[in-house]
Amino acid sequence: MQFTVSLPEWAIQEQARLPSHIPSLEERMRIVIRFSGLNIEYQTGGPFAAGVFERDSGRLIVIGVNRVIPSNVSSAHAEIVALSLAQQQILHNWDLGSDPLAAFQLVVNWRPCAMCYGATLWSGIRSLLVAGSDDACERITGFDEGPLHPEWQEELAKRGIEFQDGMLYKEAVEVFKIFRDRGGRVYNSRQARRPPP
Amino acid sequence: MQFTVSLPEWAIQEQARLPSHIPSLEERMRIVIRFSGLNIEYQTGGPFAAGVFERDSGRLIVIGVNRVIPSNVSSAHAEIVALSLAQQQILHNWDLGSDPLAAFQLVVNWRPCAMCYGATLWSGIRSLLVAGSDDACERITGFDEGPLHPEWQEELAKRGIEFQDGMLYKEAVEVFKIFRDRGGRVYNSRQARRPPP
Repeated sequence: MQFTVSLPEWAIQEQARLPSHIPSLEERMRIVIRFSGLNIEYQTGGPFAAGVFERDSGRLIVIGVNRVIPSNVSSAHAEIVALSLAQQQILHNWDLGSDPLAAFQLVVNWRPCAMCYGATLWSGIRSLLVAGSDDACERITGFDEGPLHPEWQEELAKRGIEFQDGMLYKEAVEVFKIFRDRGGRVYNSRQARRPPP
Repeated sequence: MQFTVSLPEWAIQEQARLPSHIPSLEERMRIVIRFSGLNIEYQTGGPFAAGVFERDSGRLIVIGVNRVIPSNVSSAHAEIVALSLAQQQILHNWDLGSDPLAAFQLVVNWRPCAMCYGATLWSGIRSLLVAGSDDACERITGFDEGPLHPEWQEELAKRGIEFQDGMLYKEAVEVFKIFRDRGGRVYNSRQARRPPP
C-alpha cells in the first residue's frame, strides 16, 4: 500500500538540458516560471512549479511541477513535489537543513498556499524566493490559496528561513492569465469563494 | 523521477483485521490512536495516525501513519499519507468531495499541523474529527505544529468542513508521553522554539 507522484516526461527532459548551476536568482525564477507555463501547455498539471537549489552556489537539485490531477493526489502541489523529490530521490534526507555546508533554497512562481507554507517550514530549506504574494493568483486563476497566519513572514524568519518576494512578478502573472484564458481546471475551490466572473 | 510513500507492513496487516465499517466515532478515534502508538512501538514513524472513513456509514477507507523519517519525505505526515492513499489507491480521485453520495471524514489523533491543515482543506473531506487541539502535543513531544490562522476553525466551516474536537483526548496524550519517555526523534523543530525542559 503506497502512493507515488512522478514528474512528467517533458520536465525530466527539460531539466536534463539545464546547466548544473544557476547562479543568478532571476534566472532561477525565470526557469521556474517557464516550467509553470509548460505544465499547462503540456496539460500535465496546474500552473505552478517550484525549484530546489543550493542557495549559494546555485546548484540545481530538482524542479517540480503541480501534479494534483494526473496523480490523483490533492497534496501534489509543486512545492511538495520538488521538496519530496529533493529529499527522497536526490539528497536522501528528510531534512534539507541538516548539511552544515549547504543551505537550500525553494524558488516558487507564487507564494505557497496554506499547505505548502507548512511544508516549507518542515522541509529544512533556508531560503524561500517567490515571484509574488498578493491576491493576483487567486483573483486570476480562481484557486483557493487558504488562510495564512497574519505573521507568516515573521514565522518563516523565526525558523531561520529567509524570504524574498517580487522576483519577475509580471512574468508569473502572465502564466496565470494564460491558464485562465484556456479555461484551466481549478481543482480546489469547489467549496470556497469563487473569483468574480 | 518520482517519490513514493508506503505504509509499514504492520499497518497493512492491522487494517486487514479491522471490520469494514466502524459506525461509532469514538471507536474510529480509538483505532487511530492505537495506530499512532503502534507507529512508535514498531519504530516506523512519528506518533501520529489518521484515518479516512465514510462519514455516515463508517466505512473504513484507509488508515495512514506518519512516515517522515523512513520515507525521507518531510511532508509524509499521517494526514497526507492517509488522504493520498485514499485518493490515489482506493477512490481514484483527487477530490474526496466529488461523490454526492458519500461524505468523507478524516480522523486524526491531534489537530493537523500548519501543513496538514491546508492539506485537509484541499482534500475534499467534509468532516474533521480530532482528539485534541491545544498545546499538549507541542509541549509534550517537542514537535513544532506551525502557525495556524487565528480563525482556522471558521475557515474550515467556510469550505464546508465540519469540525469536532476532544474525542479521547487523554488517550491521545498518553501516546505523546510514551513517545517523549522513549526519547522519540523530533524531526521538525531544529530551527524553531523548543519546549521547556
